[in-house]
Amino acid sequence: MKIAEQASPRTLELAERLRAAIGAAKVLTDPAQLRTYECDGLEAFRVRPGVVVLAEHRDDVVRTVKLCAEAGIPFVARGSGTGLSGGAVPVSDGVLIVLSRLRGIVDVDPDNARMVVEPGVINLWVTREAAPHDQLYAPDPSSQQVCSIGGNVAENSGGAHCLKYGFTVNHVMGAEVVLADGEVVHLGGSAPEHPGLDLLGAFVGSEGTLGVVTEVTVRLLRVPESVQTMLVGFHSVADAAGAVSDIIAAGILPAAIEMMDALAIEAAEAAVQCGYPEGAEAVLVIELDGPQVEVDEQFEQVETLARARHAFETRIAADAEERALMWKGRKSAFAAVGRISPSYYVQDGVIPRTRLPEILADMSTLADAANLRVANVFHAGDGNLHPLILFDDAVPGAPKAAEDLGFAILDLCIRAGGSITGEHGVGLEKKSKMAGQFTPEDLDTMQLVRCAFDPAGLANPGKLFPTPRLCGERPGVRTADTAPDPALGEVF
Amino acid sequence: MKIAEQASPRTLELAERLRAAIGAAKVLTDPAQLRTYECDGLEAFRVRPGVVVLAEHRDDVVRTVKLCAEAGIPFVARGSGTGLSGGAVPVSDGVLIVLSRLRGIVDVDPDNARMVVEPGVINLWVTREAAPHDQLYAPDPSSQQVCSIGGNVAENSGGAHCLKYGFTVNHVMGAEVVLADGEVVHLGGSAPEHPGLDLLGAFVGSEGTLGVVTEVTVRLLRVPESVQTMLVGFHSVADAAGAVSDIIAAGILPAAIEMMDALAIEAAEAAVQCGYPEGAEAVLVIELDGPQVEVDEQFEQVETLARARHAFETRIAADAEERALMWKGRKSAFAAVGRISPSYYVQDGVIPRTRLPEILADMSTLADAANLRVANVFHAGDGNLHPLILFDDAVPGAPKAAEDLGFAILDLCIRAGGSITGEHGVGLEKKSKMAGQFTPEDLDTMQLVRCAFDPAGLANPGKLFPTPRLCGERPGVRTADTAPDPALGEVF
Repeated sequence: MKIAEQASPRTLELAERLRAAIGAAKVLTDPAQLRTYECDGLEAFRVRPGVVVLAEHRDDVVRTVKLCAEAGIPFVARGSGTGLSGGAVPVSDGVLIVLSRLRGIVDVDPDNARMVVEPGVINLWVTREAAPHDQLYAPDPSSQQVCSIGGNVAENSGGAHCLKYGFTVNHVMGAEVVLADGEVVHLGGSAPEHPGLDLLGAFVGSEGTLGVVTEVTVRLLRVPESVQTMLVGFHSVADAAGAVSDIIAAGILPAAIEMMDALAIEAAEAAVQCGYPEGAEAVLVIELDGPQVEVDEQFEQVETLARARHAFETRIAADAEERALMWKGRKSAFAAVGRISPSYYVQDGVIPRTRLPEILADMSTLADAANLRVANVFHAGDGNLHPLILFDDAVPGAPKAAEDLGFAILDLCIRAGGSITGEHGVGLEKKSKMAGQFTPEDLDTMQLVRCAFDPAGLANPGKLFPTPRLCGERPGVRTADTAPDPALGEVF
Repeated sequence: MKIAEQASPRTLELAERLRAAIGAAKVLTDPAQLRTYECDGLEAFRVRPGVVVLAEHRDDVVRTVKLCAEAGIPFVARGSGTGLSGGAVPVSDGVLIVLSRLRGIVDVDPDNARMVVEPGVINLWVTREAAPHDQLYAPDPSSQQVCSIGGNVAENSGGAHCLKYGFTVNHVMGAEVVLADGEVVHLGGSAPEHPGLDLLGAFVGSEGTLGVVTEVTVRLLRVPESVQTMLVGFHSVADAAGAVSDIIAAGILPAAIEMMDALAIEAAEAAVQCGYPEGAEAVLVIELDGPQVEVDEQFEQVETLARARHAFETRIAADAEERALMWKGRKSAFAAVGRISPSYYVQDGVIPRTRLPEILADMSTLADAANLRVANVFHAGDGNLHPLILFDDAVPGAPKAAEDLGFAILDLCIRAGGSITGEHGVGLEKKSKMAGQFTPEDLDTMQLVRCAFDPAGLANPGKLFPTPRLCGERPGVRTADTAPDPALGEVF
């Protein structure tokens, strides 16, 4: 690949000011070094930043943002770069602020079940730090071994256990945030409820458009007395989906209830030999946690309900090893489809749980029409679909067909009263779909808030919103979109 | 009391336009009729509105707000008027929009555990409608028989069960909102997670400053298999507080854990003969819910922990009647202090649970210095204090001394790292305390959002924020507060 030109003179001048302000070693402008930062987990979008700042302290972020504001040059914050919607894709010739060196555990307060961490701290480290106190941090994205808390806050990350425990927003109590003008503010706090406008909820999941988080206070939960996992095999996806609804309707709230279809099972078996029931058209991985007596009683109910839906195999993991293997199959499913297809494209949508069988049938019809295979992995309990669309990128037009199919599935989700993202965010990838999800008035209201935080539009511009809106316009006075899209990359 | 003059000619002209737009019967301007609406549950603040609109449909609200915006006349929305911080006190010569006729149950969806209601629907009605489906609406303020869902949304109301189940914000999935310019937008929705900025969290608890809610989608929970209540008597408040911390540290999350001190017990006994343990310096009302096996096992642990803190009586309610009596004592405590004092003033603050004994000692010192008695009722599990300050309004200076003591207690809460309100809101009463809770930068950030929603400052002005800020100022460019305070009333 040809090494691109350096940044513009204006951005290089900013880089010099950054070097003077925070130290030269933290400021990268060499195009070869910048290549690492061109994309996040959605590798199809690639944009070269002008400058990368490797922040080590909160003040590095403050100084960088202030200098960007003075120069009118946009900035994007990045954690571990594992996001799947292009939310951390740089702005061309802009500044990318990398937070992964901000890895301090600032305070551990087991008595009040709180921990204060810097944004570069890896998700799983929080639970590791909490473990000696018999506590844990609940949100567990599949990438939890590498993704950062700051990125989790930006994307409002979920995970297999968010059916019972909720999303990142439900586990963040407070945040220190650098606004787009460099001012440092505190949202939320350590008390359970705060007076005034609760801007923390709006900040969590704002995908970097409202500022940069530099410290996070998270809530810890007590480790449950018992955690047990059951694997259930079905001869049809409709039966598995029916069992999910029956279990929840019976008043059982599993810690997780994951579903995989035949193609996803085939891929997982090929990759990690997870021992899923042979001949299953669908499996459920059901995890229950709580007091031992409750877990035992509820697994009996779950088994009865699953059998009533013609489950042909139910198996509770006998030990931690077997339990880990059940989860390994599920958690490696994305990577595993690489075994059965040259390429794949993962989508993320939400539907009402009760409509799962019907939507799956519609998805199957769409896939057949597109002549593409789709492996399905769901957080079934909350209707969060992750269709993995398989294609061969050597076939002309196949990548585009896969993308089109993914977007058609999102349209299904919208029509079903669901959402275009369950946990991966909108980012660059799905911003065009926001207009299908929201009315212009609803989007204008969000833009009003974004403009209040960042009137110059420097904080991660070109993400989340379908049309960049000039701040200062009043809602209802929409003008043609004349701002250039800062995302020069295209998907596929 | 002398009947005040009618509204100004400008406001009467608006009233005529309102009559033409929505029907004369819904628009009140007769000063005698307006008296009912002068105050909410904090009766010390009284302001006569210029016009009262008794809205019957969403469109009545839209038309009213649009006409107010055109005329530049402020408006305040009011539900049942049970708020305790003056959040629904009218603006003098302004418009008061009463929502209590908007009482429709729009949709009941037990399969997805959702209900859609109009804002005037009474809190307890939601649970009544859900009961046939074995579901309930969790937030339960003490006023739940009369308070409205719209008011709950405005104040982010809590209740005895918010330790386990969270506040209103945790149970509202979506809202239809009329913004200050009359535009109708939708925040949130029925899916568990939504893309874009989550403005619903900021709206819930915004005390009417961001718009008027006209429809609310709430989340329903399954009725637990078992709900049981235990009454525990202690010889000291410190022992009771220690037991609260021990129970929660043991990993037990009670549905509710309420504490009352000797004076509150005396008042409750005098009023409702609730049979609390004789000679107790403190009682705990502990409610556990969940599967029967879990509740039984946990009550054994609770009893052991309470005995270790020298509890001298523990009693599990034998039947629904005894359980209701235990709760009657707690829920009637506010009114009951009327039996032992001519007047009282209730405050609402939050401290970290672990600091309860120390803060109680400090409160006692402050009360002695002020020569006032304080009866204490707490949501002990989440450190939410409700000191009831007793005074005799016939004694010159006593009301002011009570207010000063309440505010000194709030200062204790702030210094302890807590909050100036747990569930009653800021309203008119505590807006001066916001500057103690938040930095100027934090408050500016909230004001930025308020200004984005309502640049003309017409939606419930003079509440929540300590100094009205002219929208259009940038943060950091603070000017002297020249805007008149729309609240003409004073506390006491």
